[in-house]
Amino acid sequence: DTSGRNELPPKGDAQYNRNVYFDTLPQAVRLYMLYNHWALKVLLYFFMLVNLSLAIFEDPAVYPLPIWATMLVEILCLLIFTIRLIHYAKVILRDKFWKDPKNICIIVILTLTLVDMIIYGALKAANYYGVRWSRVLRPLLLVNVTEGRQLRRAFRSIRNALPQIFYVFMLFMFSILIFSLMALKLLGKRGLTNINGTPYFTSYLEIMFDLYVLVTTANSPDVMMPAYNANFFFAVFFIVYILINTYIFMSVFLAVVYNSYKKYLKEEVRQLVRAKRHKMVRAFGVLQEQREEGGEPVVTQASWNQLVRLVQPNLSNAHRELLWSVSDDKNQGAIGKVAFVQLADLLNIEIITIKSRPHPLQSLCPSLYQSAPSKLLCQLVQHRAFVMVYDLIILVNAVFIGLDEENPMIANSEWVFLALYILEILLKLYVFEPRVFFSKHSFWNWFDTIIVISALIATIINSVMNHFSSRQILDIVFILRVLRLIRVVDSIKRFRIIINTLIRIGPAILTFGQLIIVVYYIFAMVGMELFKGKVTFYEQSSTNLAKAYCGNPLLNGTDFAKLNYCKNNFNNVVSSFILLVELTVVNQWHDILYSGFATVTHISARIFFVLFHIIVVIVILNIFVAFVLEAFFVEYSVDKSDLQTSLERKIEELELAVAQYDNLVNAMETIDNDLGGSQSAKPNLPSLMFKIASKRYRTVDALLQRIFEADLDPEDFAENDDPETQGNENFANPLFSHA
Amino acid sequence: DTSGRNELPPKGDAQYNRNVYFDTLPQAVRLYMLYNHWALKVLLYFFMLVNLSLAIFEDPAVYPLPIWATMLVEILCLLIFTIRLIHYAKVILRDKFWKDPKNICIIVILTLTLVDMIIYGALKAANYYGVRWSRVLRPLLLVNVTEGRQLRRAFRSIRNALPQIFYVFMLFMFSILIFSLMALKLLGKRGLTNINGTPYFTSYLEIMFDLYVLVTTANSPDVMMPAYNANFFFAVFFIVYILINTYIFMSVFLAVVYNSYKKYLKEEVRQLVRAKRHKMVRAFGVLQEQREEGGEPVVTQASWNQLVRLVQPNLSNAHRELLWSVSDDKNQGAIGKVAFVQLADLLNIEIITIKSRPHPLQSLCPSLYQSAPSKLLCQLVQHRAFVMVYDLIILVNAVFIGLDEENPMIANSEWVFLALYILEILLKLYVFEPRVFFSKHSFWNWFDTIIVISALIATIINSVMNHFSSRQILDIVFILRVLRLIRVVDSIKRFRIIINTLIRIGPAILTFGQLIIVVYYIFAMVGMELFKGKVTFYEQSSTNLAKAYCGNPLLNGTDFAKLNYCKNNFNNVVSSFILLVELTVVNQWHDILYSGFATVTHISARIFFVLFHIIVVIVILNIFVAFVLEAFFVEYSVDKSDLQTSLERKIEELELAVAQYDNLVNAMETIDNDLGGSQSAKPNLPSLMFKIASKRYRTVDALLQRIFEADLDPEDFAENDDPETQGNENFANPLFSHA
Repeated sequence: DTSGRNELPPKGDAQYNRNVYFDTLPQAVRLYMLYNHWALKVLLYFFMLVNLSLAIFEDPAVYPLPIWATMLVEILCLLIFTIRLIHYAKVILRDKFWKDPKNICIIVILTLTLVDMIIYGALKAANYYGVRWSRVLRPLLLVNVTEGRQLRRAFRSIRNALPQIFYVFMLFMFSILIFSLMALKLLGKRGLTNINGTPYFTSYLEIMFDLYVLVTTANSPDVMMPAYNANFFFAVFFIVYILINTYIFMSVFLAVVYNSYKKYLKEEVRQLVRAKRHKMVRAFGVLQEQREEGGEPVVTQASWNQLVRLVQPNLSNAHRELLWSVSDDKNQGAIGKVAFVQLADLLNIEIITIKSRPHPLQSLCPSLYQSAPSKLLCQLVQHRAFVMVYDLIILVNAVFIGLDEENPMIANSEWVFLALYILEILLKLYVFEPRVFFSKHSFWNWFDTIIVISALIATIINSVMNHFSSRQILDIVFILRVLRLIRVVDSIKRFRIIINTLIRIGPAILTFGQLIIVVYYIFAMVGMELFKGKVTFYEQSSTNLAKAYCGNPLLNGTDFAKLNYCKNNFNNVVSSFILLVELTVVNQWHDILYSGFATVTHISARIFFVLFHIIVVIVILNIFVAFVLEAFFVEYSVDKSDLQTSLERKIEELELAVAQYDNLVNAMETIDNDLGGSQSAKPNLPSLMFKIASKRYRTVDALLQRIFEADLDPEDFAENDDPETQGNENFANPLFSHA
Repeated sequence: DTSGRNELPPKGDAQYNRNVYFDTLPQAVRLYMLYNHWALKVLLYFFMLVNLSLAIFEDPAVYPLPIWATMLVEILCLLIFTIRLIHYAKVILRDKFWKDPKNICIIVILTLTLVDMIIYGALKAANYYGVRWSRVLRPLLLVNVTEGRQLRRAFRSIRNALPQIFYVFMLFMFSILIFSLMALKLLGKRGLTNINGTPYFTSYLEIMFDLYVLVTTANSPDVMMPAYNANFFFAVFFIVYILINTYIFMSVFLAVVYNSYKKYLKEEVRQLVRAKRHKMVRAFGVLQEQREEGGEPVVTQASWNQLVRLVQPNLSNAHRELLWSVSDDKNQGAIGKVAFVQLADLLNIEIITIKSRPHPLQSLCPSLYQSAPSKLLCQLVQHRAFVMVYDLIILVNAVFIGLDEENPMIANSEWVFLALYILEILLKLYVFEPRVFFSKHSFWNWFDTIIVISALIATIINSVMNHFSSRQILDIVFILRVLRLIRVVDSIKRFRIIINTLIRIGPAILTFGQLIIVVYYIFAMVGMELFKGKVTFYEQSSTNLAKAYCGNPLLNGTDFAKLNYCKNNFNNVVSSFILLVELTVVNQWHDILYSGFATVTHISARIFFVLFHIIVVIVILNIFVAFVLEAFFVEYSVDKSDLQTSLERKIEELELAVAQYDNLVNAMETIDNDLGGSQSAKPNLPSLMFKIASKRYRTVDALLQRIFEADLDPEDFAENDDPETQGNENFANPLFSHA
């Protein structure tokens, strides 16, 4: 059935919101399938990572490698990226390829990098000074590859929010200008001095900069103190300034960023959903049949099954039948357009299939497992008190960890706790079916087991090597011990809700992580070129006299040196990143900046730091906060989507639901409430049960769609706004005829 | 007409959302009217202010007064409050009075204060040490007086948000505990030292406190530096900590506070609107007439007019007729229940009445005013270029202010600028009708005129007293000069939108101001008792050796003394407040706290500071941010209420709208776009014009109702939830029969 086969890629695309225009000949489809193969993607990201990590080995390096070595690796990376791009060009239609700005971007980046490498290599060969300026382009590849969809979307929403942010920023700068002028007139002529004796508030530029820093609160009482010491009333000036600029303007920034972020994201999601529905409608067009004369066209269960098997080969038959029974609610053997279009969303709802199997011990020695003591044990383990006893043990353990481990009794108690934890896991494995206990979604079971086993191994290694004890292993043991305590949070319901929300927004936070890394990388590259080697860190043990002033006489006696900030430098990519984190946190950036990098280079160095503050703190962090806020509001305000509800209702109807018939199940209820019951509780359960994996989403797109679902009309089949795809109800891609 | 007269108080109540149960006999109504008289309210707030300001004169005082003097004033205040309370008790029904917790609160506060004063007076008379502990109760009066409605609501929404905040806070503390334990295990045994040589991260309590401070970012790189200097990888620990606790948890706090704040406020507003509608329905019951057999009961224009005249005596006839024509849309001479109930909301829409009058000069010497040069002048002044020229002048002025005023040319240029500004005002007064120019809502006209006239007066005084020039007057001149520059913002439309939103949320910000003052006052009183006199500030000129360590040998050599923080103390109420502002800004609180107040008192002093941080920064500031966010979203997302739209449509229909027929009017368009045109532009305008005062709200309640309007059904006349008022459709208050 080639129609089903041809349908396959757009189907997968609809599920994952990919919008790719591609050829539909069988070999083209194979090429496309290959392009989307997970292994190739992993390979791409691996080389992306290698390319980015080259900064560790290039001058200024953490671990220096000769130039030829890094160059060689970089050329390899470039080669991989080029092959990937060519592959993409083969998959996609030619004019689509050239119209797509991200392909042009990749080509430009690759070309510029190559040019830069040649120039740099030539300069180095001739022993001239060269700058590897193309390194700032590296993270941009992350944004422009086809897979960087989420990241591109984040960048787009930033770009869209920029005009609004710009106006507020201008007003904010105007406010700083006015306040600076006032400060100059009020305080400049009074002959006040800073602590270090320099004149206070006499230069307009200095005042502006000081007041900008005050907005971040980094120099909070210090900048005010000389004026406040001179007169009470000057404090009022600073308080009004802080109220207006720190509290009101910063809230307005958040409001503006939040507002436009939401607005544009909503629009994007709406377009994506439209495109997805359009693809589904096209698929429907291919698969549809006219069952009765003049009736609505429908898709039969047979072709539907074939399609789903192709799209998700590893979906169990039972699961597929369940989905069908949701789509074909009235059991007619065929579904209409509306029900068919839902398929992509249905596939995105994660359903946990639980096979109700007898415990292996029951098969092995049924008489023993069914005996009275064994049953009593099962009841004990499933009792609420069992969980409470172990919570108590964890708390006692916490106290013991806090105590001094020099005491031999406390050191030995660790073995007792380890034994208790292992006993707990063994008991649970005795009571619950192991495959259920270690099912994919049993987060806390996996967490517990891995932590306990690792702690056991590490503790054994540590005590074996007691006499030549390694600090690293000890550290790992300590961390594992402490991590174990987190388990206690899971038994308190109120906490579980908050933690689940946090875990749920995890994938979206990763997108912001990528975003931050792109920005950090660019700033780190620029910062390294500007400030490398200006500040040197000497080990604690060093007796070098230069240690007192971070190896730079200009820093002698400055706060930077006094506060021992020498390691906050741009001497390699790792310390640059850590310094940028410190700058993101904002505190003391004034000190680092002023006393530090401006002293060793030039006063204009502060432009770099202010720019970083504007981009990262005012724009990106606000978007991050906006996202967390939005995700929490969604969690608090809405429960489940209509589709999820109808799926759940269907599961209930079919009596296949995983019931919460047991205290223990409740108590052990994890993120996904996925643990099936034991045999002892209700022996005559259906052999297969389903459970919706609560409100977790398979993809970030699904989460976004959920956030803005209230504004999307499920019956809205309007065509994609893109004029090129409009009016192509049938499958045949008109672009294909060009190829 | 006594029915109308009796109706009066509930009417006013409905407009301002007061919920008071009162007697309805004529003398009782008079008493109630007196109670609500503005003069008595002003008097109450004046004595409230006096009572609060006593802290300035009481030990530890800014300006010390003998105990008997402050005691006498306080007794006077208590007397006033008692009289006011008795007045209220007379107005309200007795059982209602005793059931209201705020009355009980006031009685308790007054009694406790009296008891404390007697004890304190006796102790002082016997020369014993006494603490005026009842001073912390003073700001609570602000919350509990009948007029403190907004403030009470703010406190209620905080109280309602507390359970949610509490769970997140517990989780947050748990996270700090876990990280502290990890830090102790990882870093405690390495023999690292802080800059001052003390051991690093060895005490569990110290680590917890340091990590709590790190959440506020106040000790950001410093707390990490010793570990980071020892090993690269420890920075990862701190970065993970900051990511989880500073960024994620702080966002979650904002989300939780925002969410519950919104939820409960919405519920409160809904109940208020219900109560208001209920009152209006009761009023309708009194005024209704049956016009035709079996028809709906209606209120005639005559009784409606009488009612409105009683409620708002100073409403112009034309305005009243306009409101009637909105209510009686079909011109039937009577209105039904739905239209009648809207009246309270209609009265809350601020309408600007503009009388189109000829310019006084036109009446005085019409030939001159109508002459060709005069008309040309009018056209010139109204031209867009005129505004641009003055914007340019302002900018040039800004540059001149920034320059050194020692230069005589620049000093004299001030006179030129002043003359130019005065000329501008005179020209505008020549062109526009003065009463229109100085109408109530012409914010920027008033702003300009006041600033320019004050600057003129101050500059003249300053130059007259040139030889014995007073610094204070010069300061005022400088500030006025700089403030003049703000005018330029108004000519840029984009900025105007943002500024208007900010001005609109102003009244609500004032509620937060009160809230903050209540909390600050309590902390200041406690802080003064705990820390007064521990740190002394010496003037710059002082030669006292104790100056180097703030008069406390314990501070010798500490950062607190080195950074010259001596004036950050609790020695009087003013410096306490300034210190609390610094603590709110959070930066350096670690330094102030550790090196400062913990050194001079006890390590447990930090509890005071952490408590302040939790209450003010985590709870109250987040509510403030939530409010600003919500207000901005409302401004961005919705435009005008339905009622406003229908009112505006009616104004348009009646051709009484203030048209924007002129460039100048556009350019001079102020917050309320309220400036009428000049005679020269369109001579045949109606003599009276209306304009809705855009989106400003008369009361905070109206703004809140606006925010949550989308969720309120205008046809919802459900009874108040309070069972005592349920089912009283007729006016006769059943409670009245008890009296």
